[in-house]
Amino acid sequence: MKTWKMAARAEKMNPSVLREILKVTDLPGIISLAGGLPSPKTFPISAFADACAEVLKNDGAAALQYAASEGYGPLRQAVADMLPWNVDPAQVLITTGSQQGLDLVAKVLIDPGSRVLVETPTYLGALQAFGPMEPTPVSVASDDEGVIVEDLIAKAKDSRFIYLLPNFQNPTGRTMSEARRVAVSAAAEAADLPIIEDNPYGDLWFDEAPPLPLTARNPEGCIYLGSFSKVLAPGLRLGFLVAPKAIYPKLLQAKQAVDLHTPIFTQRMVVEVMKDGFLARHVPTIRALYKRQRDAMTAALTREMKGLDVTFNAPVGGMFMWARLPEGIDTVKLLPKAVERGVAFVPGAPFYADGQGDPRTLRLSFVTASVDEIDTAIAALAATLREQLAHDAAAKVQRELAAT
Amino acid sequence: MKTWKMAARAEKMNPSVLREILKVTDLPGIISLAGGLPSPKTFPISAFADACAEVLKNDGAAALQYAASEGYGPLRQAVADMLPWNVDPAQVLITTGSQQGLDLVAKVLIDPGSRVLVETPTYLGALQAFGPMEPTPVSVASDDEGVIVEDLIAKAKDSRFIYLLPNFQNPTGRTMSEARRVAVSAAAEAADLPIIEDNPYGDLWFDEAPPLPLTARNPEGCIYLGSFSKVLAPGLRLGFLVAPKAIYPKLLQAKQAVDLHTPIFTQRMVVEVMKDGFLARHVPTIRALYKRQRDAMTAALTREMKGLDVTFNAPVGGMFMWARLPEGIDTVKLLPKAVERGVAFVPGAPFYADGQGDPRTLRLSFVTASVDEIDTAIAALAATLREQLAHDAAAKVQRELAAT
Repeated sequence: MKTWKMAARAEKMNPSVLREILKVTDLPGIISLAGGLPSPKTFPISAFADACAEVLKNDGAAALQYAASEGYGPLRQAVADMLPWNVDPAQVLITTGSQQGLDLVAKVLIDPGSRVLVETPTYLGALQAFGPMEPTPVSVASDDEGVIVEDLIAKAKDSRFIYLLPNFQNPTGRTMSEARRVAVSAAAEAADLPIIEDNPYGDLWFDEAPPLPLTARNPEGCIYLGSFSKVLAPGLRLGFLVAPKAIYPKLLQAKQAVDLHTPIFTQRMVVEVMKDGFLARHVPTIRALYKRQRDAMTAALTREMKGLDVTFNAPVGGMFMWARLPEGIDTVKLLPKAVERGVAFVPGAPFYADGQGDPRTLRLSFVTASVDEIDTAIAALAATLREQLAHDAAAKVQRELAAT
Repeated sequence: MKTWKMAARAEKMNPSVLREILKVTDLPGIISLAGGLPSPKTFPISAFADACAEVLKNDGAAALQYAASEGYGPLRQAVADMLPWNVDPAQVLITTGSQQGLDLVAKVLIDPGSRVLVETPTYLGALQAFGPMEPTPVSVASDDEGVIVEDLIAKAKDSRFIYLLPNFQNPTGRTMSEARRVAVSAAAEAADLPIIEDNPYGDLWFDEAPPLPLTARNPEGCIYLGSFSKVLAPGLRLGFLVAPKAIYPKLLQAKQAVDLHTPIFTQRMVVEVMKDGFLARHVPTIRALYKRQRDAMTAALTREMKGLDVTFNAPVGGMFMWARLPEGIDTVKLLPKAVERGVAFVPGAPFYADGQGDPRTLRLSFVTASVDEIDTAIAALAATLREQLAHDAAAKVQRELAAT
């Protein structure tokens, strides 16, 4: 073989920036605040063991056979029952992780060059899933409450959809307020702009449930993506989407072409685990754990970053916190130094679709590391930052001396 | 929402012809020779139950966490060890069923309008997987030994690849001979034409193993797709591909964008099941069962179709047999009548990429139904056919009388 002639879309594919960054963070002895890995303490291992045994004993042959592309009927029903609006199970499509929902949406809605609106910043995995269909992503200005409605309206025309992550967003941890949801929903409907609502973290609220999903307000204008990764376990790759009748058949055809169906064994496992109201007992334990770890991280940042010009938020749920370091700091350059001191984070810039990312930002996960590890890691991050600031100040003095 | 503006590729998606056909075959009381469902008797249910318990006991947290996009290391090693040529595990990518391998290949190699060569007839699922990337499929003339080399050479120019299923092909059950493999491999290499080799059935040989894969003859010019669906269970959706260094990174990036990774729990289950040489004991039992059922079907066809102009092959492995009914019969029209008599099959015409399918052909699966069911089903099929022939003959007499 002399040459492999690739598709144009493949020529444009690049290794994930984030993935390359995270390679350096995966070393032994590093406390990682980088990845979005749920705490393994939250995995209901023994409940899964019981469920596997039951499924194989009672329905072994069916659990190992080919199955329907739409997903396992009882799981589709369970999803419909879980959601806080009136969902017909016929509109639920089980996916191999919610990431696959993004791939199917891209296949069905994006032509090369299609405008696709995203938050500023947005989930990098969505940009990667949409990428092969070659859209033109357009960042909508956003504040602490989510996308800014005026900018959404200004950019809606000729856009295929807006991709939104209203609850405890990845990467910022922010939540779209009720007032903003009302306004965004109305604006999208007025502009005939579909909303792709991604809600992997919505159940991980700490004090009170977030406002109603956007999809609940206008089901015919939205595709809703959900996941079992954060309430049960990511290693099963089980997610779902809910789509209106106008678009569901195309998503189903795309799903069938991609992998025929999501593994039926894991679908049945999850139905078995969830029976008798398991999630209602289990999810509060995850919320309590992550809330303690968020508290530990905000306390550690307050303590360790004292006197430095560092801002950060205190998300009311989810997995991630967003911070901004003093002027002049570039978190991409800071990362290797932090890793030397034993802590990893994710620089914020890659999460901006327009390439105009703020170099001072970073994402911190508070779910994987324990409270003690969080304390150690934030202290190490602060030491790294102080050293960098001292180094930058010294360099500045040197430059000034050299100039006089 | 007034309208959902869809991507051009989605506008062209149609419900699977086969899927629509199979809906009528899925009724209670019907013996289906239609679907490609492995016999559930072959599923090692208790071995899976033991494996689930072991994996969750020993590695529960890791088995439920996010994992590498490339796949689980020991599974990649096991795949490399299984294959009959020297494979570096670094070139193995674990997929969510081998169908997903086709989706990734399409994303990386097909531009809209790209020529893609396929067999006559070919696997319908491959046409569906390639479809969203909008290729122009071109059928290469084929005989009982596979694609005809002269026609392959004539059509190779400006084609992105040729998709081949050399062992016990779906739908025809035919196997590419050693001589044909040598010639096809040489012709593809000379034309710098990549081969996508799909081998889901290769282990299901009855008397002797098929010739070496095409990929073994020129690993740098081929992507090889394999599956655990037929030797363990399809409900896990576990497959793999082996790709040369020139193209592997792009396939990996596409995989990561699609679903991050294949479920790690099922990957670990399969590694656990396969330890201690399980497949070497298990697969021969599948071969023996399917061989008995193939024998039953050829015997039943010989007996029941006596005196009718029906031809069929006797595949030396796999799951499918290919038959051709007398002149004037259209198997699409015959199917509902067969279903009325309690037997279902798949008409052959949809498997032809160029739409010029032979209406007299049909595919019969000999793996799902038992020997007794096969006997009953083939008798019912013969009765349906005799009735149709009698009806057609009577209609012809009527027409001739009317014309005199």
